[in-house]
Amino acid sequence: MKFNIPADVPKNKVAFYKRNLKAVTNGKNRLMLFAGDQKVEHLNNDFYGKGIPLEDNSPEHMFKIASKAKIGVFATQFGLISRYGRDYQNIPYLVKLNSKTNLVPYEKQDPYSEAWLSVGDVVDFAKTSGLDIKGVGYTLYLGGEHEHSMLAQAARIVHEAHKNGLLAVLWIYPKGAFVKDEHNGHLIAGAAGVGAALGADFVKLKVPFNKKENFDVEALREVTTAAGRSGVLCEGGAKVDEKTFLTELYEQIHKGGSRGNGTGRNIHQRALKEAIKMANAIYAITCEDATVKEAMKLLK
Amino acid sequence: MKFNIPADVPKNKVAFYKRNLKAVTNGKNRLMLFAGDQKVEHLNNDFYGKGIPLEDNSPEHMFKIASKAKIGVFATQFGLISRYGRDYQNIPYLVKLNSKTNLVPYEKQDPYSEAWLSVGDVVDFAKTSGLDIKGVGYTLYLGGEHEHSMLAQAARIVHEAHKNGLLAVLWIYPKGAFVKDEHNGHLIAGAAGVGAALGADFVKLKVPFNKKENFDVEALREVTTAAGRSGVLCEGGAKVDEKTFLTELYEQIHKGGSRGNGTGRNIHQRALKEAIKMANAIYAITCEDATVKEAMKLLK
Amino acid sequence: MKFNIPADVPKNKVAFYKRNLKAVTNGKNRLMLFAGDQKVEHLNNDFYGKGIPLEDNSPEHMFKIASKAKIGVFATQFGLISRYGRDYQNIPYLVKLNSKTNLVPYEKQDPYSEAWLSVGDVVDFAKTSGLDIKGVGYTLYLGGEHEHSMLAQAARIVHEAHKNGLLAVLWIYPKGAFVKDEHNGHLIAGAAGVGAALGADFVKLKVPFNKKENFDVEALREVTTAAGRSGVLCEGGAKVDEKTFLTELYEQIHKGGSRGNGTGRNIHQRALKEAIKMANAIYAITCEDATVKEAMKLLK
Amino acid sequence: MKFNIPADVPKNKVAFYKRNLKAVTNGKNRLMLFAGDQKVEHLNNDFYGKGIPLEDNSPEHMFKIASKAKIGVFATQFGLISRYGRDYQNIPYLVKLNSKTNLVPYEKQDPYSEAWLSVGDVVDFAKTSGLDIKGVGYTLYLGGEHEHSMLAQAARIVHEAHKNGLLAVLWIYPKGAFVKDEHNGHLIAGAAGVGAALGADFVKLKVPFNKKENFDVEALREVTTAAGRSGVLCEGGAKVDEKTFLTELYEQIHKGGSRGNGTGRNIHQRALKEAIKMANAIYAITCEDATVKEAMKLLK
Amino acid sequence: MKFNIPADVPKNKVAFYKRNLKAVTNGKNRLMLFAGDQKVEHLNNDFYGKGIPLEDNSPEHMFKIASKAKIGVFATQFGLISRYGRDYQNIPYLVKLNSKTNLVPYEKQDPYSEAWLSVGDVVDFAKTSGLDIKGVGYTLYLGGEHEHSMLAQAARIVHEAHKNGLLAVLWIYPKGAFVKDEHNGHLIAGAAGVGAALGADFVKLKVPFNKKENFDVEALREVTTAAGRSGVLCEGGAKVDEKTFLTELYEQIHKGGSRGNGTGRNIHQRALKEAIKMANAIYAITCEDATVKEAMKLLK
Repeated sequence: MKFNIPADVPKNKVAFYKRNLKAVTNGKNRLMLFAGDQKVEHLNNDFYGKGIPLEDNSPEHMFKIASKAKIGVFATQFGLISRYGRDYQNIPYLVKLNSKTNLVPYEKQDPYSEAWLSVGDVVDFAKTSGLDIKGVGYTLYLGGEHEHSMLAQAARIVHEAHKNGLLAVLWIYPKGAFVKDEHNGHLIAGAAGVGAALGADFVKLKVPFNKKENFDVEALREVTTAAGRSGVLCEGGAKVDEKTFLTELYEQIHKGGSRGNGTGRNIHQRALKEAIKMANAIYAITCEDATVKEAMKLLK
Repeated sequence: MKFNIPADVPKNKVAFYKRNLKAVTNGKNRLMLFAGDQKVEHLNNDFYGKGIPLEDNSPEHMFKIASKAKIGVFATQFGLISRYGRDYQNIPYLVKLNSKTNLVPYEKQDPYSEAWLSVGDVVDFAKTSGLDIKGVGYTLYLGGEHEHSMLAQAARIVHEAHKNGLLAVLWIYPKGAFVKDEHNGHLIAGAAGVGAALGADFVKLKVPFNKKENFDVEALREVTTAAGRSGVLCEGGAKVDEKTFLTELYEQIHKGGSRGNGTGRNIHQRALKEAIKMANAIYAITCEDATVKEAMKLLK
Repeated sequence: MKFNIPADVPKNKVAFYKRNLKAVTNGKNRLMLFAGDQKVEHLNNDFYGKGIPLEDNSPEHMFKIASKAKIGVFATQFGLISRYGRDYQNIPYLVKLNSKTNLVPYEKQDPYSEAWLSVGDVVDFAKTSGLDIKGVGYTLYLGGEHEHSMLAQAARIVHEAHKNGLLAVLWIYPKGAFVKDEHNGHLIAGAAGVGAALGADFVKLKVPFNKKENFDVEALREVTTAAGRSGVLCEGGAKVDEKTFLTELYEQIHKGGSRGNGTGRNIHQRALKEAIKMANAIYAITCEDATVKEAMKLLK
Repeated sequence: MKFNIPADVPKNKVAFYKRNLKAVTNGKNRLMLFAGDQKVEHLNNDFYGKGIPLEDNSPEHMFKIASKAKIGVFATQFGLISRYGRDYQNIPYLVKLNSKTNLVPYEKQDPYSEAWLSVGDVVDFAKTSGLDIKGVGYTLYLGGEHEHSMLAQAARIVHEAHKNGLLAVLWIYPKGAFVKDEHNGHLIAGAAGVGAALGADFVKLKVPFNKKENFDVEALREVTTAAGRSGVLCEGGAKVDEKTFLTELYEQIHKGGSRGNGTGRNIHQRALKEAIKMANAIYAITCEDATVKEAMKLLK
Repeated sequence: MKFNIPADVPKNKVAFYKRNLKAVTNGKNRLMLFAGDQKVEHLNNDFYGKGIPLEDNSPEHMFKIASKAKIGVFATQFGLISRYGRDYQNIPYLVKLNSKTNLVPYEKQDPYSEAWLSVGDVVDFAKTSGLDIKGVGYTLYLGGEHEHSMLAQAARIVHEAHKNGLLAVLWIYPKGAFVKDEHNGHLIAGAAGVGAALGADFVKLKVPFNKKENFDVEALREVTTAAGRSGVLCEGGAKVDEKTFLTELYEQIHKGGSRGNGTGRNIHQRALKEAIKMANAIYAITCEDATVKEAMKLLK
C-alpha cells in the first residue's frame, strides 16, 4: 500500500501517521468508521423506541460492539470515551470533537456546531490515558451564517491532527434555508471538494440520489473524483435490511469510488451478537475485499 | 464501592478524585446536592414572600443549613462562597460556575448562561482559601442559538475538573421556542445522553412526567439508562409536603435508577431547624439507604 | 470594626484589603461613593444646562471637589484619572471600568457595557503612577441578550480585585423590554442577591419605591437583607433639595439597612464651595454617625 | 509650554511623550493633523472626480504634501505608511488604527470600525522601520450595538499608546438611527466628554452648528470645556474657499477654545504646490499664532 | 527592476522578500496568478459540467498544470497543498488563507470569509515541508456587517506576511445589499484604495465595465492609479475564447496600468496540454513582454 502523507505531517510524525492510517484501513486505504455520536446529534431517538433493542439505550452497548467487532475506528465524543475508556482499552478511537442536538430545525436557525475541545487536548489525553486514539472528527455545515467559523475550525483541526500524526475525518453537510436538496450529487461533490481543500483524510458525506431517491452511482463518481485524495465515506443512514445495506456499500466502493463508510444505526440498533456480525460484514467489504456474498455469510 | 474513574483523570489525581467522589456520596455512589444557586436563577422569588420564613432572605441561611445538616455538597456561586467561606469552612462546596436571571422568558430570547470563572480559578481558590471544594457545576440549555457555546464550555469544564481530580455536575435543560414539553421523558433521556457524551459525573435533570403531570417512573428508567455512567440527579422543584417529597425521592432512586437529587427550595424555605431535619432526611434516603419511614422519623 | 474578608483575598493581600476597606469606610463599614462617571453615561446632560453652574462643565470640577471634600472614594473612568491624577494625588480613587452612553433607549437595544480595561491594568497603573486606587467598579444590566457577558465580566472583576486586595463595587440594574418597573423593591432585592452571588463588596442599586413613587423603607430592608454581606449603596439620583436628600439618606442607612450611597449630581451640580459642603454632609451621615441636623449644619 | 502628562505614561517614557507632544504641536499645545485616511472611509470619492486634480488619485500625492509642508502629523493607515515610508522618512506619522467604508448607510446598520492592528504592532514597526511615528488614531461611533466594543478598543489604545510614550487621537462621532443631528453642540460636547473619559490627548469632532447650519462658536465653547484636558480638533470637512476655511479655523481656536484641526480634503484636493501652501497656512494659524491675514499671505 | 519594499519587511527579511517578488514577477513587477481556490468558492460548478473536460474534476489537474506551465504563483487552499505538495514540489505556491461557499446569495446574508489558518502556520509549514511558498492570499468583502472583521484580518495578514518576507495578495470585492453594480469603475477604484491602505502587494479586483458591460480601459486607469504601489490584478472571470482573453489582458496591462491577472477557469477548464499552453500565453503577456500575436503563437 502506498500512503498519501499530507505535507503538513512533520518528519518525526510520518511513521506514526502511517501506522495510524494503515491500522484503521487494514492497509487497504479504506475506512470502516463505526459512528457513535448520535447521543447528541439525535438525542435519544436512535437508542430507544420501536424496533430498537433495549440494550442499545445504554451507551455501553456501542463500546461492547466496538471492542468485539472488527472496525476501523469507533467515533464518539470525548466524554463517553473518558467514562468507558479504562474498561475498553482495545478499541481504536476517533474523537468526534463537536456535536449539536436536533432540537432546532435547520431551516429555522443556521446550524452551528462548535469544537468542544482542541486537538491538543486529545493529544494530551492519549498520552495521559494510554488509550489508542487514531484521529479526530469534526462536522461542518455549509451554507449559513456560521459557515465561516466551522470552516476555520475544520482547517485548524485537520492541520493540528496532521502535526501530531493523527487522522482527520470531516463530516460535511450543506444545510439551511438555501439548500434545497441535500442528496443532489453535484452539491455533494461540492462538499467533497471543500473537504479536499481542507486537507481531510476522509470526508463523510450524504449519499447522492437519483430522481427516484435511490443511490446514484454515477453521481457518486463525480463526488469521489472531486474529493481528490480525501477518501469519501458514505453515510450509513437509517436502518435497512442487511442485504440492501451491504450491496449498496459494495457498489459505493467498487463502482462509485468511495473509500469506506460511516455507519451507526445499522450496527448498534441490533442486539450485541447481531451488531457484531453486521459490523464484521461491513468491515469485510470495506477493508478485506469481500464480496457481498462473502459478507452475508458472516451474518449467519 | 467500585469507582468509575474517568480516563481523563490523570494518574496523580486519581486518589484525590476517588476521595472526593467517596466523600460526597458517602461511599454509596449517590449524591445529595443542596442547590443554592437560585439568588441569580430566580432572583429573590425563592427567598422572600408568602410562606417563606424571613430568615431565608439572608444568604447566610443556606450556609447555616449546609454547615449543620448532612449533605453531599452545597452548590452555590463563587461569590457567595468567597464572602461566607471563612466562617463556614466545614461545608463541602460545589462551585456553580454559571447562572442567569429569569427576567427574559425562554421563548423570547434563546437562553445563554456563560461560565463566570474557569475551573483553574476554582482550583487556585481552593488552594488559597483552604476551603473544601469537591467539584464544579454548570448549567447548559439545549435547543437554541447559544447551544454550541454552552456545549463547548461544558465539555471544557468537565475535562478541566477531571484533570484536577474534581467532580463535574451538569444541569441540562432543553429550552426555548422549539421545546414543547420539558417534562417529556424521551426528551429528558436525550439530555441525559448529552450529559454522558460530555463526560459528566452527575447530570441534574427535570423529572419526567406522565400525561397527568405526575412523576413517571418508567420514563425515568429510560433516562437513567441513557445517562450511562453519569449519575442522574432529579430536580427537587417547588416546595411540597415532606412525605410526598421523600416518597418520590425514594422511588426515583430505587425504581427509576436515579443516583441522587438536587434540592434547594424544599430545604431552605424552612426555618433553620426544620431545614436541617429535612436535609438530613433527604440525605438518609439518598446516601444512607434509609426507607421513607426511617427518613420521616428524622423530621420529628 | 470587624471586617468581612472575602475568602478569595489571598493571605498576603489581607492586610492591604483591610486597609482599603477601613480607609474608604472610615472604619464604619459604610461607603460614601462620589460618583463621577456620568460624562459617558449621560453625555453632557449632567454637566451643562439650566440650573447647573458653568464650572461643572469642566471635568476638573469633580477632581477639585474630590480633593477637598471628605469622601470615601471618587469613582470615575480611567482616562480622567490618568489626565488629572498627577495634579490630584490625594484623592482615593475607584476606577469605573465600564461605561456606555445613553443614546440608544434601553427598550430598543438590550444594553451592553463592556469593561474598557482589566483589573490587571489598574493594578499596574497604581504601581506606575503611585496614585491611591482603592478599588474598581463595574455596571451590569440584568435582563437582556448581553446579561451573560456582563455577569461573567463582573465575576472576573470582583475576583481579580480581591486577589489584588482591592475593593469591588457593582452597579446592578435590571433593564430592557422585559423590565416593567425598575424601582420595584422585590426586583431590586433580586439585583442585590446577584451582587451577593458575584461576591461584590458593595452593590449600587436603584432606590425601591412604594406605589406613590416615594422611597419605601420596608422594601429596602428586603433588599439589604438579600444582599447578605455585600453592602447596599443607594443611588443618589437627580438633584433634590439638601434636607430631603440627607433625610432620605439617613433613613436608608438607619432604617433600611443600606451601607452607604453613590452620589454624583447632588454634589457636583453645585458651585465648588457648596459642593464640598454637601459632600461633607453626606459623608457625615454615612461615615461619621451624624444626625440629619448635624449634617445640615455643615451646609452653612 | 507646560505639558499635561497623563498619569499612565510611565516614568521612563515621560521624556519621549513630551518630545512627541512638543514636536507635533510646535510647543503650542495645538495640533495640525493632516487627515489622510479617506481612501477607506470615503473610498475613491475624495480623490477622483469633478474639481479634484488628477494627481490626487495617487496615494503618493498625500505623502508628497506631508513631506514638504509644515504639518503636525500625517494621519493615515498602516499599509500606506508601510508602502511609502522608506521614501518619505521625514514625515511625522500618526497611524490611524481603524477605518471602515461608507458603503452601508449609518441608519441601516450600526457602524463598527475595528482596530486593524495593535499599538504593540505600531511600536515594533517604529523600531524596525526607523520611521518617525508620533502616535496612533482611532475612530469610535457612539450610539449603536457596537459602541461597547469601540469604547473598549479606544480605552485600550489610548492606554497602550501612553505606556509607550505615544500620543492618542480619537475621532468620536455619535451615529446611527437614534442620532438625529450630529452637528448639535450639546451632543458633540457629550462626545468630547467621552474622549476625556477615555484619556485621549486629542479628540477629533464634528463642528457644532447653529440653526442656520453655520459654525456656532458658543456651542464650541461648551464642547471644548467639556473635553477637559483632551484637546478638541475640529473636523475640516468638505472643501471650501481658503478664506472661509482659515477664518473659521482662527475662530475655532481663539474664540471656541479648540486646540487644532483635522484637515484632509481642504488640503489634498489641490495641486501639489497649492496643497503645500494651504497646509502651511493652516499650520501657521494652528501652531504659529498667525492671524488670518498672515496665513492668507502664505497662499500667494 | 527596482523593488518597492514595504517598510514593515524587517531588515533580515528584505533579501528574501525581494527574491520572492522577483521570482513571481519574472523581474517585471507583474504577477501571473493561477487561481485555484474555486473548489470552495464555487463548489463543483467550475470543475464538472457541460464544456468542462472530465479531468478537471480531480484537484490534481490544477497541480499538473501548475507544475508544467509557466506561472507566477498557484493560489489555492492550504489543505490541497498539503495533500499534493509532496508530489508537486516545484510549484511556487500562494496559500489562499480563506474561502467561503456560494450557497447563500450575497443579498441574503452579508458575506463573511474568515482566515482558516494564520500566516504563522504557513511560515511553519514552509519550513517543515520544504515547499516553495511565496506568499499568502485573503479575500475581503466590503460593505456588510462583517467588513470590520475582514479588514482587520487582512491588515494582520499583510503585516505578518511582510514580517516574514512573504508576499500578500488581497482579493477585494464590494458585495451585499447596498452594492448596486460591482463592475462600476469608481467603486472598484475605491476597493483598490482599500488594498493600498492595507499595504497589499497585489490586489485582485473585478474588471471595470462601461455601460455596455465591456471592459472600460479608462476606468481601469482610475483604478490602477488609486491602488498606488499595490499592483492591480484583473480577475480572469468565466471562460471566453483565447484571443478575446489575451487581447483584453494585454490592454489591461499596457493601457490600463494593471500589473497582472488572476486566472482560473480560463486555464483549468481545458485539457492538460491546452491548459498549459494557455497558461504560458498568459504568462508571456504578463511577465515576458509578449504581444498578443506572440502569445497566440504559444497556443498552437
